[in-house]
Amino acid sequence: MQRYKCTISYDGTLFSGYQVQPGKRTVQSEIEEALRKLHKGSTIRISASGRTDAGVHAKGQVIHFDSPLQIPEDRWVKALHSLLPDDIVILKAEKAAPDFHARFDAKGKEYRYFIRLSDVKDPFTRHYQFQFGYQLDIEKMKEAAAYLIGTHDFTSFCSAKTEVEDRVRTLQRIEMDKDGDQLMFRFAGDGFLYNMVRILVGTLLETGRGLRQPDEMKAILAGKDRSLAGKTAASHGLYLWKVFY
Amino acid sequence: MQRYKCTISYDGTLFSGYQVQPGKRTVQSEIEEALRKLHKGSTIRISASGRTDAGVHAKGQVIHFDSPLQIPEDRWVKALHSLLPDDIVILKAEKAAPDFHARFDAKGKEYRYFIRLSDVKDPFTRHYQFQFGYQLDIEKMKEAAAYLIGTHDFTSFCSAKTEVEDRVRTLQRIEMDKDGDQLMFRFAGDGFLYNMVRILVGTLLETGRGLRQPDEMKAILAGKDRSLAGKTAASHGLYLWKVFY
Repeated sequence: MQRYKCTISYDGTLFSGYQVQPGKRTVQSEIEEALRKLHKGSTIRISASGRTDAGVHAKGQVIHFDSPLQIPEDRWVKALHSLLPDDIVILKAEKAAPDFHARFDAKGKEYRYFIRLSDVKDPFTRHYQFQFGYQLDIEKMKEAAAYLIGTHDFTSFCSAKTEVEDRVRTLQRIEMDKDGDQLMFRFAGDGFLYNMVRILVGTLLETGRGLRQPDEMKAILAGKDRSLAGKTAASHGLYLWKVFY
Repeated sequence: MQRYKCTISYDGTLFSGYQVQPGKRTVQSEIEEALRKLHKGSTIRISASGRTDAGVHAKGQVIHFDSPLQIPEDRWVKALHSLLPDDIVILKAEKAAPDFHARFDAKGKEYRYFIRLSDVKDPFTRHYQFQFGYQLDIEKMKEAAAYLIGTHDFTSFCSAKTEVEDRVRTLQRIEMDKDGDQLMFRFAGDGFLYNMVRILVGTLLETGRGLRQPDEMKAILAGKDRSLAGKTAASHGLYLWKVFY
């Protein structure tokens, strides 16, 4: 048995998220089905750095799996592409140590969130950027973001359905770059809770619109209550960009 | 009756082209269906500046239609959006003279063609740029393009199925801009024959790869034979960009 680490990219539009769900088209089930064909019907389970929700994209998701096949690294990419649908791409396949684990060995992640600042609809970006027609004060959003950087209990910024007990995470960076009508958020941290990036974006957008003051972020964090933060921003603007090991 | 001129954009991916075909999802049939709903079941026919094929996109297609409804211009956009699918966007609706005709009044058109220069697949651009993994000599392609600019019989550069007798057209511009891994072609002319832009792109790409010499373009034009030119480039890289009146 050889353990492999693969870096993959997918367009989340037509998937019911990453994780296997009975009767649904998911990223995990498509890749496991391709591996099954490659292994003459044997089941090969994959593990990812984490799940992504329906509609969420990945530029650099990481998975691992074990295989008895002796295939050179670059041949894995071609062999899997011939069996995978076009909305999943294997960017890289590497041999990994037998104890490498895509989730438990991850030291951190980068997510990006893309907004198209316009009140005119656009058919080409509708699945890839969140269209937002309101004026934004980006300086106010950066002020708010400064309160969120660092180590905090992010209970207020994760889904009320979050099952994890320990909601303390460290955010190293929140950056916002505006380029024409595109606003890109960049989040880097040691780990992210369920819906955390989307709730951070939603809350920052409300601050940018003037519906919240930047220093409210302190009270939202301290309150440890999901209802204090803003709306969850749409899934289709979100990209799992990179996983750090 | 009032004649309206609308500028529309569509993502061609999920359409069997612009024109109505029985049992197929087309741009024309979706818009006519929306207009039918808006007119309480009455049929309203639309006319476009020209057809686009399956998979071809539009950033600035123009259509016209006649309506008995008294609706302000900006309300047309909202009313139609509420009835149209997300892959068609009405950018603008304007009152037009009763004799305005989207096709016969068009003085010229601009098409663009987008190529992603890479041998790595990308799930996000797969319907919007043509992926091309070969090295290209863009200077050679510009040399070849210079032979094509001007007024010529473009029989060699249109589909053998073209029914139009007069294949003389004037190409005002062919430009190529490379930005990172993206190569954009811009074609402006008084009119374009069936598949003409895609065959021009295919032939220029073969020149860029060194499979043809730039000055071959003279003989291809003179031969008036489709088989002399290069392959028809894929539909999904092509955009009807603008119609001039």
